[in-house]
Amino acid sequence: MKNNNAKVAKNLFEELYPICRSITGNGVRDTLQILQEYAPWHVHEFCSGTQVFDWIIPDEWNIKDAYVKNEQGIRVIDFNASNIHVLNYSEPIRGNFSFDKLKDRLYTLPEFPEAIPYRTSYFNRNWGFCLSQNQYDKLNKNEQYEVCIDSTLEPGHLTLADMELKGSEGKRTYIISTYCCHPSLCNDNLSGPILTTLLYQALEKMDLRHNYRFVIAPETIGIITYIHANEEFFRDVDGGFVITTVAGPGEFGAKMSFSHNADVDRVIRLGFGERKMKYNEYSFAPDGSDERQYSSPSFRIPIATITKDKYYEYKEYHTSKDDLDFVSGDALSETLELYISAIEKLEVNNIYRVLEDRCEIQLGKRGLYPTVSGHVKQSANEANESSPKVIGDIIYSNAIDAISWFLFYADGKTDLVTISEKSGVPVIQLHKVAQKMLKENVVALVEDPNG
Amino acid sequence: MKNNNAKVAKNLFEELYPICRSITGNGVRDTLQILQEYAPWHVHEFCSGTQVFDWIIPDEWNIKDAYVKNEQGIRVIDFNASNIHVLNYSEPIRGNFSFDKLKDRLYTLPEFPEAIPYRTSYFNRNWGFCLSQNQYDKLNKNEQYEVCIDSTLEPGHLTLADMELKGSEGKRTYIISTYCCHPSLCNDNLSGPILTTLLYQALEKMDLRHNYRFVIAPETIGIITYIHANEEFFRDVDGGFVITTVAGPGEFGAKMSFSHNADVDRVIRLGFGERKMKYNEYSFAPDGSDERQYSSPSFRIPIATITKDKYYEYKEYHTSKDDLDFVSGDALSETLELYISAIEKLEVNNIYRVLEDRCEIQLGKRGLYPTVSGHVKQSANEANESSPKVIGDIIYSNAIDAISWFLFYADGKTDLVTISEKSGVPVIQLHKVAQKMLKENVVALVEDPNG
Amino acid sequence: MKNNNAKVAKNLFEELYPICRSITGNGVRDTLQILQEYAPWHVHEFCSGTQVFDWIIPDEWNIKDAYVKNEQGIRVIDFNASNIHVLNYSEPIRGNFSFDKLKDRLYTLPEFPEAIPYRTSYFNRNWGFCLSQNQYDKLNKNEQYEVCIDSTLEPGHLTLADMELKGSEGKRTYIISTYCCHPSLCNDNLSGPILTTLLYQALEKMDLRHNYRFVIAPETIGIITYIHANEEFFRDVDGGFVITTVAGPGEFGAKMSFSHNADVDRVIRLGFGERKMKYNEYSFAPDGSDERQYSSPSFRIPIATITKDKYYEYKEYHTSKDDLDFVSGDALSETLELYISAIEKLEVNNIYRVLEDRCEIQLGKRGLYPTVSGHVKQSANEANESSPKVIGDIIYSNAIDAISWFLFYADGKTDLVTISEKSGVPVIQLHKVAQKMLKENVVALVEDPNG
Repeated sequence: MKNNNAKVAKNLFEELYPICRSITGNGVRDTLQILQEYAPWHVHEFCSGTQVFDWIIPDEWNIKDAYVKNEQGIRVIDFNASNIHVLNYSEPIRGNFSFDKLKDRLYTLPEFPEAIPYRTSYFNRNWGFCLSQNQYDKLNKNEQYEVCIDSTLEPGHLTLADMELKGSEGKRTYIISTYCCHPSLCNDNLSGPILTTLLYQALEKMDLRHNYRFVIAPETIGIITYIHANEEFFRDVDGGFVITTVAGPGEFGAKMSFSHNADVDRVIRLGFGERKMKYNEYSFAPDGSDERQYSSPSFRIPIATITKDKYYEYKEYHTSKDDLDFVSGDALSETLELYISAIEKLEVNNIYRVLEDRCEIQLGKRGLYPTVSGHVKQSANEANESSPKVIGDIIYSNAIDAISWFLFYADGKTDLVTISEKSGVPVIQLHKVAQKMLKENVVALVEDPNG
Repeated sequence: MKNNNAKVAKNLFEELYPICRSITGNGVRDTLQILQEYAPWHVHEFCSGTQVFDWIIPDEWNIKDAYVKNEQGIRVIDFNASNIHVLNYSEPIRGNFSFDKLKDRLYTLPEFPEAIPYRTSYFNRNWGFCLSQNQYDKLNKNEQYEVCIDSTLEPGHLTLADMELKGSEGKRTYIISTYCCHPSLCNDNLSGPILTTLLYQALEKMDLRHNYRFVIAPETIGIITYIHANEEFFRDVDGGFVITTVAGPGEFGAKMSFSHNADVDRVIRLGFGERKMKYNEYSFAPDGSDERQYSSPSFRIPIATITKDKYYEYKEYHTSKDDLDFVSGDALSETLELYISAIEKLEVNNIYRVLEDRCEIQLGKRGLYPTVSGHVKQSANEANESSPKVIGDIIYSNAIDAISWFLFYADGKTDLVTISEKSGVPVIQLHKVAQKMLKENVVALVEDPNG
Repeated sequence: MKNNNAKVAKNLFEELYPICRSITGNGVRDTLQILQEYAPWHVHEFCSGTQVFDWIIPDEWNIKDAYVKNEQGIRVIDFNASNIHVLNYSEPIRGNFSFDKLKDRLYTLPEFPEAIPYRTSYFNRNWGFCLSQNQYDKLNKNEQYEVCIDSTLEPGHLTLADMELKGSEGKRTYIISTYCCHPSLCNDNLSGPILTTLLYQALEKMDLRHNYRFVIAPETIGIITYIHANEEFFRDVDGGFVITTVAGPGEFGAKMSFSHNADVDRVIRLGFGERKMKYNEYSFAPDGSDERQYSSPSFRIPIATITKDKYYEYKEYHTSKDDLDFVSGDALSETLELYISAIEKLEVNNIYRVLEDRCEIQLGKRGLYPTVSGHVKQSANEANESSPKVIGDIIYSNAIDAISWFLFYADGKTDLVTISEKSGVPVIQLHKVAQKMLKENVVALVEDPNG
């Protein structure tokens, strides 16, 4: 399953990479159409010029070709070689320019001379080209250049998509959000839509209690448009994840919500902790991605993010080197597992009440305690006795510890995530104990702890 | 006094060590009878078969003899050599067994080959023998063995004892609890009943404000029985101590209550702190001893424990090597002092209110401040002046600091334990200051801060 | 301006140093008269014998001359050489004494033999002399000495002064308090009155929102007298600063209020933090200076203190070596800047509310965001593009970060000091952002967050 995810991710990277995306236009539409083969993304179109809170949806941008030719007619900068050569959202232009006239419209990265930078000008009409410093250095500074950007920038639409999984209880709703607006760039941002699509596939197979709304939209303006169109819905969202930069070769990271201790933060921390995985924990800051919109004062939805090679932090970020070689399906699949693990914890995070709450439950008469006692810890393995590693259908190296922690805090107030934080026992292990104890009629599920 | 306690403890260890105790039977009765010579323990008997919450009191177990004889008639395992050779609570058995038939009923500790493990089977009818790995290795594996366990397991009683000290105010009640069910094992658990008995002697000499209920019972089933018989009483208990493993040669430890910051936790921390003693602080876990019952959801009584060589942590735990050589009266007496110190703090933990609460009190006119001032700190010792080390009857290296901290927080809300935590001034020193200030009519005792 | 403060401070140290001050008498009056040339200190006199809370204002002390002459008529101890030679508040005396009779009235510092200690006896009639251990060692122990203290100790007055700056809103009131009672001693305590006077000059030039009450009085008895006379006023004081030992050569320190997290504590921490300055943070203790009175139970006004060479901590403290060489105008001026910075933060610590609180504000259309985007962080400086270091009139290395943090927390609840603590953006920078956003009609000032 994990390997299959890695394989699907690899194929999707390769299929989606060539498309020239932007915050509007056919690049997004084509991308969504491919993703629809994997999950039931529902596409929505919003007209240019629509006011969405403090913003206005801009004209739609599409592009066919772009180049800078030298006096020999050779394309020294060529859109067909890389679509990030064009300043994204460039208005159409045709003409001849001396190098001196042209050079203020050329963007390079002197400190990373072999990479083409990725630059945009969405809300200010402009045109330009991005190229590597090495390319720039080779340009003849005394020549005339023929410039062509064969783009259109006209009233049209902004395109986004969503889908939903409804849980059996439906009392809590989480948003799972990613963006889609970068041209041929892999970790930021193709990895986000791919993981989000595969995450839907994984959750779709589970018996869910909570509701999950998935959205894929151009960053910032797209999500603002989506929130504007679903304002009442977002008044009742309990938390969520913004999925971005999840498939790099480097370290795992987690950016916490503004609360630093929301359930979405806590299940991520527990997931890394129980795997004994090192990761960088990033405090909340009002930068990054669409958590800025979901967490804005009127909504204050706590949003967390798991990353692998977090945006801002890797050298290849927003350059032509964030390419198919930088990411891998395996890396994406590892991050996917962490997201699934986080959501599994949200799903089982119930509160239980022990029915006989005066003193301990006698585990022995239920076959949950070794019949011969006196070891250092009852759960320890001993050479000349069958180890209590399997108790009922609970498999855990310290099964009795897990049971004891669970029953001690089965007080009708404390949820499994909290018990896991106090005890170090994985949430899923506590959940298995809880299921066993429900079956034994030792505890009851507390349906509504506040009701 | 301390030396006397050490001596009494040593004698009691020696007198109680040979008795074969279990969770029921004459071993407990004989032990309690000896302890009654030192404190007014009141003995209670509870019938086998009684339902106590989720448990049932088992049949009473008594034993006269037990052995395994080889073909030469020599006792190769002999109850008379050590009563922990018998799997505690073994049902009676007589018969001849090949080694192959016998070997599944033999318990050893391969990793500690010279020690006999201590094993029990209270709630599952069973029989067996415990022996050192060295003994086991010497057994002829081809012989027939004559096995005899001359025990009885019949309807009878579970035996426990309690006693009480009533305080002058009686608004708060603490439980001081220990268990008594192990055969010839010293730190776990003879040290507990001995210290508890001596602690009664010490408290009995004090003018107490609070109530103290002392209980000694077989671990788990005994305390559950006791709580069952006193359920209403336990609804009003404010905290307590479970006394176990207090006389080893190793490090001091303190296991905190589930709250980690109950008054019983705080006075223990302060006691170690003011002595500048190193100790291991153990977070609460739902293991250990009878704190599991007192702190169960229905009661949630915070219980702390001071240990010297904490259970689970020393190699000799639950083996024949936890013997008279392992423990000492001196070690027990040191731990006793820490318990007395903790309870002294609970006793004096009053709240005071300064009568003139606007600006400072003038200490000088009350003879509490040096008449010539200007030192680096007024309390510093100087060569050519009488040091203010003794002020009134307050002896303290920084008497003025103690007075200042006390008066600053004599605000009718802050108790002495809190002032001690903020200031580092020992609680008893603050109490002496408070008594002096009461006499000077500078402060009043706040009888009921919430009333 | 800073240099001018340093110069004025230096001159004031020199002018005030020779005066023999005490808790009453002409020394204080003369000092206040000189300070009145720099700020409108309003002088108040309180009669000896007046009861002020638990204290009584003592008789007024004045002194003309004092000496100890040897048999050759040479002044071996001479008030004219240093006024701290006299035990401060010595009653008048004239007579001849053998060395043996005299020696109990001589105070030295054996561990710092070249320094004269400063000693007082305010509330107990006494007389004596202070001298260096070196001087003491040279005294002929077999001679008769002629002693003269030409002082008066008679009903008179205690003298203190205050002044006030009223803020435009006046909802909050802060006390800025210093003491004046030490003779020729510089860091403790001339530096306090000098800084306080210069602080008034600085605040007087600002448009203030809050009220500031300045007071200069003899330590302890003087401030108690002042609070007694203004008891109702002090019921409404929100916080303050006690200014002492601010001009030494050593390390900065900050003694926190009893709350450790009052606004006066927080603005001091932020001031050191944004300058990346090392300082010693001292926890509250009920010692030190007049914070003891302001923070006494009935008032509980949080008071913080910034020091440079904190009292108690430097060797020269309360000796003749705390002289003009120990302090400097530059050091005092540096500490003054920190106090001004703290008060500026209190002044701008407003709460704002973003008017469109659903999703982000579009900064670009207001000229607050670079038109070409895609850098690692939008605020980063890049070689081939105008750096966004100046945005509007906001100058900040990370202007967009400052704006983002401000707008994210412009939720009508969070004040600028809190935003600064969360973000690391200096309060004044956030204030500039807020002013810009007010002008752009993006936010509103929340007049009364609780109203």
